[in-house]
Amino acid sequence: MNASFHHFSQDDIAQLDRNFRRNFINTLSGFKSLSLCGTINTEGQHNLALMSNIIHIGANPPLLGLLFRPHTVPRHSLENLLATGFFTLNHVRESYLEAAHQASAKYDSEVSEFEAVGLTPQTGTLHPAPYVAEAPVQIGLAYEERHDIAANETILIVGRIVEVQVEQTALQADGYLDLDQTGTLTVAGLDAYFKPAPLGRKPYARP
Amino acid sequence: MNASFHHFSQDDIAQLDRNFRRNFINTLSGFKSLSLCGTINTEGQHNLALMSNIIHIGANPPLLGLLFRPHTVPRHSLENLLATGFFTLNHVRESYLEAAHQASAKYDSEVSEFEAVGLTPQTGTLHPAPYVAEAPVQIGLAYEERHDIAANETILIVGRIVEVQVEQTALQADGYLDLDQTGTLTVAGLDAYFKPAPLGRKPYARP
Repeated sequence: MNASFHHFSQDDIAQLDRNFRRNFINTLSGFKSLSLCGTINTEGQHNLALMSNIIHIGANPPLLGLLFRPHTVPRHSLENLLATGFFTLNHVRESYLEAAHQASAKYDSEVSEFEAVGLTPQTGTLHPAPYVAEAPVQIGLAYEERHDIAANETILIVGRIVEVQVEQTALQADGYLDLDQTGTLTVAGLDAYFKPAPLGRKPYARP
Repeated sequence: MNASFHHFSQDDIAQLDRNFRRNFINTLSGFKSLSLCGTINTEGQHNLALMSNIIHIGANPPLLGLLFRPHTVPRHSLENLLATGFFTLNHVRESYLEAAHQASAKYDSEVSEFEAVGLTPQTGTLHPAPYVAEAPVQIGLAYEERHDIAANETILIVGRIVEVQVEQTALQADGYLDLDQTGTLTVAGLDAYFKPAPLGRKPYARP
């Protein structure tokens, strides 16, 4: 092993200070997808939450996954999407990063985070969940299935994409959406935001 | 709706050209985690594959998730990790991006992608799966559980982190691993690589 590396065994990790371990393990997976999740509850109250545990699941049918912390405390986004069947994901750009980060605060259920942080809810005709009007990429999803992770009681929600709105100029002829042009950000760990700079696209690799 | 937006309904997406849809839906989730997955088969042959469908699942116990395409064709990484119980994830930096991308090619099972692309396998004493010696962040995982996604037959593998090696200088006092200093890259869609530039860390948000 290289001397400039710090080595952690399973036991080392188990004995880490709780906050150190949370920061450390959260950065290990690498850069994470970052989106604002919009939902509506059965009383018509909007909810907005900042999410980074998002995974591409498939293109046909079009599916994304979203992982939620254990449902041992109120989880407004999770409760709303289970109750109404719909949610939205909206990319975050630098011009409203402060507002997006503020949406990660734990507001009471009577508060609309849209109002609290100063972003604009926008609903369409296909489903009731609100989009973030300021977002260059807006994705509407229908609840598809749920998987409960036995190891830590987190919940993977699989959503089927039912509507997409993207900035016209960022969409290329082959379907590639230019995330540099949309100004989409990424996050490392719990609180470190980044603006990716393009290194180019690579041709399909063959042996 | 803003006139500069392109709108897709569920039906529009279903009717897209197959390649267009694959590129488009793959970029929608935003920037994705990027790692090389190292495994060994029961004959001792190493395998290396480029992965982007990685998700943080929890810090205590330390868990990561990895999504695999349907097991309808040979999937060496998946087969190896199920057979041996272990796999590694290794961050990708710009100095060996070409080799990492080449590891996404479909090699026969007799070929070690380490040799084929020119990266160095390195094994430790805690488990048999090979790390990428060149990687600034090397994570060893034990198979923990499996979830089959009904909607498209993809397979979510949950791994428990059993060993970590990180460049000492990138690890900060509070456990945050500086992914700018490690030179970790990210990917959008199937083939567009990016180097994230830091925008800073934000304080914990309160209402």
